[in-house]
Amino acid sequence: MPQNMITAIPIPGIPHVRPGDDLPRLILAAASEARIEFRSNDVLVVCQKVVSKAEGAVVALRDVAPSPFAERIGRKMGKDPRVVEVILRESTRIVRMDGGLIICETGPGWVCANAGVDSSNSLGPDTVVLLPRDADASAEAIRKVVERERDVSVGVIITDTFGRPWREGLTEVALGVAGIEPLLDLRGRRDLNGHELLHTTMAIADDVACAAGLVMLKDSGIAAAIIRGAPVTAGPGGGWRFVRPRESDLFR
Amino acid sequence: MPQNMITAIPIPGIPHVRPGDDLPRLILAAASEARIEFRSNDVLVVCQKVVSKAEGAVVALRDVAPSPFAERIGRKMGKDPRVVEVILRESTRIVRMDGGLIICETGPGWVCANAGVDSSNSLGPDTVVLLPRDADASAEAIRKVVERERDVSVGVIITDTFGRPWREGLTEVALGVAGIEPLLDLRGRRDLNGHELLHTTMAIADDVACAAGLVMLKDSGIAAAIIRGAPVTAGPGGGWRFVRPRESDLFR
Repeated sequence: MPQNMITAIPIPGIPHVRPGDDLPRLILAAASEARIEFRSNDVLVVCQKVVSKAEGAVVALRDVAPSPFAERIGRKMGKDPRVVEVILRESTRIVRMDGGLIICETGPGWVCANAGVDSSNSLGPDTVVLLPRDADASAEAIRKVVERERDVSVGVIITDTFGRPWREGLTEVALGVAGIEPLLDLRGRRDLNGHELLHTTMAIADDVACAAGLVMLKDSGIAAAIIRGAPVTAGPGGGWRFVRPRESDLFR
Repeated sequence: MPQNMITAIPIPGIPHVRPGDDLPRLILAAASEARIEFRSNDVLVVCQKVVSKAEGAVVALRDVAPSPFAERIGRKMGKDPRVVEVILRESTRIVRMDGGLIICETGPGWVCANAGVDSSNSLGPDTVVLLPRDADASAEAIRKVVERERDVSVGVIITDTFGRPWREGLTEVALGVAGIEPLLDLRGRRDLNGHELLHTTMAIADDVACAAGLVMLKDSGIAAAIIRGAPVTAGPGGGWRFVRPRESDLFR
């Protein structure tokens, strides 16, 4: 077997997370219980749902008074108007609103359905979970605890599941990134013919997120995983770097 | 360690591939040489570049006479007009043409830069490689040989590296898929609260492609990898199923 394998190791046993829970400690305890150790250069991948719940980024729908616009859109789309209201409050721009879908810009510039507002794996009926308020800060907070408690340098990625234009199905994306470079710039490196690679900047944290997604399916109860052996380099992180600047975005 | 880990195993030693080469045999020989065995439910991921080269989907630019339109676009964008001509010949639709980029629809409905026409890792200077003519057929041909020669049921995915709207960086996508279901429909399954999942169809073959991409970077010389342990189910394959139908695509 070659040495340069990559492994995705699910961390089972993280309990239902509630606002105020100390998520880094829950993750470390679950890893210990499962006898999973952290090694340097591991990337710890954590789904945004547990991050948001621990941070209290949760809304009880009984507290939401929908605006007339949210009422109308809700009726038209067959959605709960209170959920539409939360989606609108989370949005900085509506990118498309058609075919029963609301594609929003939210956070630092993420584009996704419903501004990431989701009722699955929430705190119970009539609650919805928002995206983390600052996913890079969330990732960095987890990274610091793991580094301090386990004395290893790790990367941390907070992930969510987004759709995309043109292609069916959802894939994982990196929202928050800490401790590693989110993008891997291969420009200047050479291909097998010695030809310089001109346009190849890999979304390496997204690829890592997708690898972890394979062990963190929504119905699996797995909220975190370790990716070991990925070609990541230490760095300051910053999931916001995935947000394509307005001027180079042909699909706004 | 939990049993349900996923591993990405690079297959080193596949030689430079040329038109007419028997790619499945080259892959099997390289795997044998590296003492990598195939197991049932493995997914063999192969980058499109070697598939296209083996199948002769390669163009020598000296044979290309650019049209007046290709000449003008090439001048305007600072691209070789002969490359532009090949891109146009590969395209069924130009989705966007701006900022030095030509985003095209090609193949069964893939949307990507330059219709997938690429000069990196090609046969040498002044040649470009096209996408496989029928990536599902390419995947199925490889799958049949692996199954016959190794007596195991495997999935095969032919991958390429695409950009995407809104997010910086490239990720891997599955072009051709054989032996497994490309999409994993979680609808009807239940989340941790017993709440039914309504809208979750995962692009599982794309997630597998991304996991493999981590061991198949463009400058690595690795053209194939095995993903072991992924939550794939046997099926007829069909990468074409990723193509979002026109009527449900908000971003044409």
